[in-house]
Amino acid sequence: MGAQQSALATPPGYAIHDAESLRTALAAVPDVARVLGGSPADWTIEEVGDGNLNLVFIVRGPAGGTAVKQALPYVRLVGESWPLPLSRAHYEHLALRRHSALAPGLTPEIYHYDATAALIAMEYLSPHIIMRHGMIAGTVYPGFAEALSGYLAAPLFGTSALALPAAACKNLVADFAGNTALCKITEDLIFTEPYQIADNNRWTPGLDGHAAAIRGDGDLKLAVSRLKMRFMTAPEALLHGDLHTGSIMVTEDETRIIDPEFAFMGPMGFDIGAVIANLLLNYFSQIGHEAAPGARDAYRAWILRTIEALWTGFQTKFTAAWVAGGSGDAYPAALFTTPADRAHLARERAAYLDRVFADTLGFAAAKMIRRILGLAHNIDLEWIEDERVRATAEARALFLARDVMVNTHAYRGIDAVTAAAARVNGLVPTLDGA
Amino acid sequence: MGAQQSALATPPGYAIHDAESLRTALAAVPDVARVLGGSPADWTIEEVGDGNLNLVFIVRGPAGGTAVKQALPYVRLVGESWPLPLSRAHYEHLALRRHSALAPGLTPEIYHYDATAALIAMEYLSPHIIMRHGMIAGTVYPGFAEALSGYLAAPLFGTSALALPAAACKNLVADFAGNTALCKITEDLIFTEPYQIADNNRWTPGLDGHAAAIRGDGDLKLAVSRLKMRFMTAPEALLHGDLHTGSIMVTEDETRIIDPEFAFMGPMGFDIGAVIANLLLNYFSQIGHEAAPGARDAYRAWILRTIEALWTGFQTKFTAAWVAGGSGDAYPAALFTTPADRAHLARERAAYLDRVFADTLGFAAAKMIRRILGLAHNIDLEWIEDERVRATAEARALFLARDVMVNTHAYRGIDAVTAAAARVNGLVPTLDGA
Repeated sequence: MGAQQSALATPPGYAIHDAESLRTALAAVPDVARVLGGSPADWTIEEVGDGNLNLVFIVRGPAGGTAVKQALPYVRLVGESWPLPLSRAHYEHLALRRHSALAPGLTPEIYHYDATAALIAMEYLSPHIIMRHGMIAGTVYPGFAEALSGYLAAPLFGTSALALPAAACKNLVADFAGNTALCKITEDLIFTEPYQIADNNRWTPGLDGHAAAIRGDGDLKLAVSRLKMRFMTAPEALLHGDLHTGSIMVTEDETRIIDPEFAFMGPMGFDIGAVIANLLLNYFSQIGHEAAPGARDAYRAWILRTIEALWTGFQTKFTAAWVAGGSGDAYPAALFTTPADRAHLARERAAYLDRVFADTLGFAAAKMIRRILGLAHNIDLEWIEDERVRATAEARALFLARDVMVNTHAYRGIDAVTAAAARVNGLVPTLDGA
Repeated sequence: MGAQQSALATPPGYAIHDAESLRTALAAVPDVARVLGGSPADWTIEEVGDGNLNLVFIVRGPAGGTAVKQALPYVRLVGESWPLPLSRAHYEHLALRRHSALAPGLTPEIYHYDATAALIAMEYLSPHIIMRHGMIAGTVYPGFAEALSGYLAAPLFGTSALALPAAACKNLVADFAGNTALCKITEDLIFTEPYQIADNNRWTPGLDGHAAAIRGDGDLKLAVSRLKMRFMTAPEALLHGDLHTGSIMVTEDETRIIDPEFAFMGPMGFDIGAVIANLLLNYFSQIGHEAAPGARDAYRAWILRTIEALWTGFQTKFTAAWVAGGSGDAYPAALFTTPADRAHLARERAAYLDRVFADTLGFAAAKMIRRILGLAHNIDLEWIEDERVRATAEARALFLARDVMVNTHAYRGIDAVTAAAARVNGLVPTLDGA
């Protein structure tokens, strides 16, 4: 084996793979060798990981390919100075299996999981691309809202106390309770650091004033702290935990969700909000990607309609799942048997979804702010070379996010959010030095 | 060993104790033998368990005594037809240790825990009596509210994300996640069965109409289902889980809390509400215990003042603990550094306690209803021999509980609750056949 040893403590048998050690390892796994076909010497192996945390190899053989993801004992983006447990591969694999059972066809198939190597060999998705790239290029994905709202509704309902006995929910909580290091990344980078002076923070020149305003905004800091508390103590359903457009692979016809290594039992709105935040960030970024002013207006409109369809699709499917299969320990069917009872329960479902909606907006706002003022930015905005243009897009996103997080209940429906986004996109923000 | 074997599956080494097998077992535990003194043959051993679930032996020796609690593999009240895991002794012991560290002097000292025997040998509390008995007799406990509000505030704060890192909270959640069988008793008996036709239910003759009204009350069934959902999915703090006046031992000067075998990470208001519910039930029961009408008016007033002092004491102590030690991952101190920030945070603390208060009222109401319409009743009411008097007291309690649970937010403070209790105690309820 040509694998190098990590300087950080890892369990016996773990080694960081390179192409040749991986070839040897996969050759010993019949399920993977069969997918690839030919002999191991024929396989091409390429490390392509552009994420923040892991190694990702694409392995191709005469018969097919596999994507192999290996956890490193540290954060790839930062290096060995930031250790991170290998167990995240365990949680990812567990969540992938659970989510794929509840939302078939929307996650990659798993060929092989090696706990010791913290490695998952899964279906190589082709010609799928990372959705974020497609959206930067202005590509419309007509089936996306339908597919993703299904991915959200089925697993979020199916892992909740609305569908499961209390004991099954608690087993899920316990199964994922150890994924604290990944949760802490979210707690720190999303809910805390952007609101204080922190070494990890960075932002586009021109936004000093905006960043300072956010650090001084007591209402906003309370709002984000309430959201953080919910993130930590509201185990409503098994979340993906990092559902941005970089965790979604698409063709014009297909949508697949990857990378649930941040999975844990948390508030449903966190996953839904993550997607909406990333769609909104892309919306505001279009000013930096269009060939001429207004050239992407139709695309902008598509994004806003997609956000609306995503929420309404989720709402419809989640409600239907509850009506059809609300056999969990919560709101027991046996208590709601008369027509009057059922009318009450129907109103309660709407009220429940209103609460999820409020969470969704709050978490979406938090996700937008962290991508502009915190450690990890996204390329929708980062790839805008003109810093004034980028700062303009980002200031608009911050303005919307701040209002949505503090005045959440003024947004009575998803239309109110998209209408506000369109209005904010017409604002000319004040930048430093302007 | 003279211990009999249970017909239910138990782990190797477990046997249900009788006095003689317990004598042999305790003789082998130096920490217990030292407390008792003399030789094992000198010890008197008496089984006194009057609870619903376990065996309880009082063992006395020349030097001192110990109370020994052994879990049975079934519900004692019902028998072998209702199995219940022995692991509850593990959770009780774990919770006792954690709570006693946070609220010293308010729980019995543990001398010995035997996991195999599901047995805890603890301090024999004397001359303490079960508080419920004292209250039926009309005994005032001047220090109770002060002690119990401390017991509530310190552990509930100290095991929450306000005091602990998120990972520590999740460890606690995982540590107690297995106590699902005990949680399910609560979920079924408190939050579900009293609201439907169920074999376990029973009530005093005269209350058929009230029981039917509650089963047909859609608003109430939604309200109790929301509370059930919070019970299942709001791991705010490590709860006692069964904090009625039968789990509290008192003298006029001392208060000790026993029996946290229902412990789990849940909503704070559940523990606080449990105490308040039991004080209110005793309040309404006084009509059946006083020598002449009005003879217990001063005692009634003491109960209501105690409920007020309990909540305000909790509120004050919890807030003080947060101000002094809010070093958990929630509401991070680093975000609230300016005087303006701190003023915001002070308002948030009040808002947080308002939410705990609303939970407290809802759970108190649920606890009152279950003791009147569900399986497990309490002797405050059961010991009233005149069924019309008992039904009158119970109908009043049901009336208050229904209003508090459905119109929780109309009760703006604890004074509103005690004032309502006093008003309701003057009502003449309609009973069947009247």
